[in-house]
Amino acid sequence: MSTKVVAVVGATGVVGRQMLETLEARNFPLSRLVPLASERSRGKTVSFKGETIPVEVLSENSFEGIDIALFSAGGGTSKKYAPLAAASGAVVIDNSSAFRMDPDVPLVVPEVNAHALKNHKGIIANPNCSTTQMVVVLKPLHDAARIRRIVVSTYQAVSGAGIAAITELQEQSRALLAGEPYAPKVFPHQIAFNCLPQIPQSDAFLDNGYTSEEMKMVHETRKILGDDSIAVTATTVRVPVLNGHSESVNVQTEKKLTAAEARALLSKAPGVVVQDDPQHQIYPLAVNSTGKFDTFVGRIRDDISHESALDMWIVSDNLLKGAALNTVQIAEELL
Amino acid sequence: MSTKVVAVVGATGVVGRQMLETLEARNFPLSRLVPLASERSRGKTVSFKGETIPVEVLSENSFEGIDIALFSAGGGTSKKYAPLAAASGAVVIDNSSAFRMDPDVPLVVPEVNAHALKNHKGIIANPNCSTTQMVVVLKPLHDAARIRRIVVSTYQAVSGAGIAAITELQEQSRALLAGEPYAPKVFPHQIAFNCLPQIPQSDAFLDNGYTSEEMKMVHETRKILGDDSIAVTATTVRVPVLNGHSESVNVQTEKKLTAAEARALLSKAPGVVVQDDPQHQIYPLAVNSTGKFDTFVGRIRDDISHESALDMWIVSDNLLKGAALNTVQIAEELL
Repeated sequence: MSTKVVAVVGATGVVGRQMLETLEARNFPLSRLVPLASERSRGKTVSFKGETIPVEVLSENSFEGIDIALFSAGGGTSKKYAPLAAASGAVVIDNSSAFRMDPDVPLVVPEVNAHALKNHKGIIANPNCSTTQMVVVLKPLHDAARIRRIVVSTYQAVSGAGIAAITELQEQSRALLAGEPYAPKVFPHQIAFNCLPQIPQSDAFLDNGYTSEEMKMVHETRKILGDDSIAVTATTVRVPVLNGHSESVNVQTEKKLTAAEARALLSKAPGVVVQDDPQHQIYPLAVNSTGKFDTFVGRIRDDISHESALDMWIVSDNLLKGAALNTVQIAEELL
Repeated sequence: MSTKVVAVVGATGVVGRQMLETLEARNFPLSRLVPLASERSRGKTVSFKGETIPVEVLSENSFEGIDIALFSAGGGTSKKYAPLAAASGAVVIDNSSAFRMDPDVPLVVPEVNAHALKNHKGIIANPNCSTTQMVVVLKPLHDAARIRRIVVSTYQAVSGAGIAAITELQEQSRALLAGEPYAPKVFPHQIAFNCLPQIPQSDAFLDNGYTSEEMKMVHETRKILGDDSIAVTATTVRVPVLNGHSESVNVQTEKKLTAAEARALLSKAPGVVVQDDPQHQIYPLAVNSTGKFDTFVGRIRDDISHESALDMWIVSDNLLKGAALNTVQIAEELL
């Protein structure tokens, strides 16, 4: 296995930092790390394997000699620079939504559809955080019983919205507890001690009344599971949690699958940990998922409202499996 | 309209206090208020219409001369004292779950099934908070299109778990923000910056894997809407919100109802306010519902995963429409 020159675009952001930590934690075989960021990060450094590495300002010439470029700097940056990076010979793994639904771009969760990597043309897309953790759990159920319909409601942490969003939840909580006002800046409304049925923060709503985040869960789930006949409806909600997305998922299958059968399948599924002993208050929790590579599932039960459906509760670290980890796992698959 | 002697059992609790405020705010025609509570509240007083009234310790003789007794002191107290109060000639309106599924006890949301009050035998039950706000919205949709199945996920505030729960969320949030530990006392796990898929805090889980709170939403919805053929599945989740329950509700109907038709029906529904202009970030929010008598609904959209279903977001003050207000509204209906 040869070592690679790896660039991280958006290296100073919340996800970019997690990418560096994940590359280090998994001992990714790299010969050189090139942290890239926008003009705003000029002069900054990052820490990697005990070294302090200066951040380079992203430009059209940044990708010469790069083998793998991990992008997490927003859709605009990806749209402009990912094709340039690919043209320079790098394989791009892009965490933005820019290329996910492009039929020429594989959208990959390694435990689910690593085979899709075979036909890549230089750009590979990393799915949306809320989709990734759901499909890694749903894959074995789909294989066993063919999923027909998914009704999902999410409980999403603020970390997915960046550093300023984390600060806003912390500072607004502190202010409100002290009886002081704190006007929203990042979110459209108060996020502390509140639930917002809107993700992302701006330009969220489409003509069909869904948000772009909700429609990502619809389209990306189908593409990753490779079955456009799966019906999906999603309600995505921002909750006052710092990190770790939770999801209440109702899954209807063609073949009846009992909760016990689902639990048995999931206990063998890669990347999935079953935490399902409710009598002892054991079920997945956002605060316990933080820093973990696994996706956790519990509250698995036979849906009493339908002859062939299950309810479950899926939790994962949205910065890891939902972003940085999955990106690095794709890079590992490429080696 | 004659004035009534009204007892409030559990007058010093979170819901009891809201009952006093609601009786006052709605100018309920009472000749005398009798606040009752357990031994623990001996010596306490309550404020009502500018007067300070001593709390009386609840006993078997507390109900002589009482016309209406509003109970909110837990299932055990209701089971013991509600029959005594009814035998003394009082009409009991009970906020606990003790009698809700008793076929001899009407379970009433006045906007939905006030007619059920006619046959009461001295005890009337107030539904569970998460059910009440859902059925007040679903009633006009059921009348128009016959609801066949409901998939609901809740985002429930801590206030429903009492004063100690509110304090725990506040103090735990404060501690964690200061980097200090704060062990859970009321909740089975950390509630600050976390989501718990368990309500209530203890003895929650039934043999079918659902919690008692979830099964309340199943059984009570059917009883209030008067249709046992409605299929319901619920996932009830405690979120770090002080007050105001939010619900993500998917409703499948026999007759196709468009989002526009549902919005039109709901805009005329009693007790319901449509807040549904997402392009302008207008949708129901827990923090805005606090202190309001109405139930708010928004994010109404045609479910793209089903030919005859709707998604919506329902929010209400769980202490008011979910408890104290609905109880007082039942008393008003009785007059």
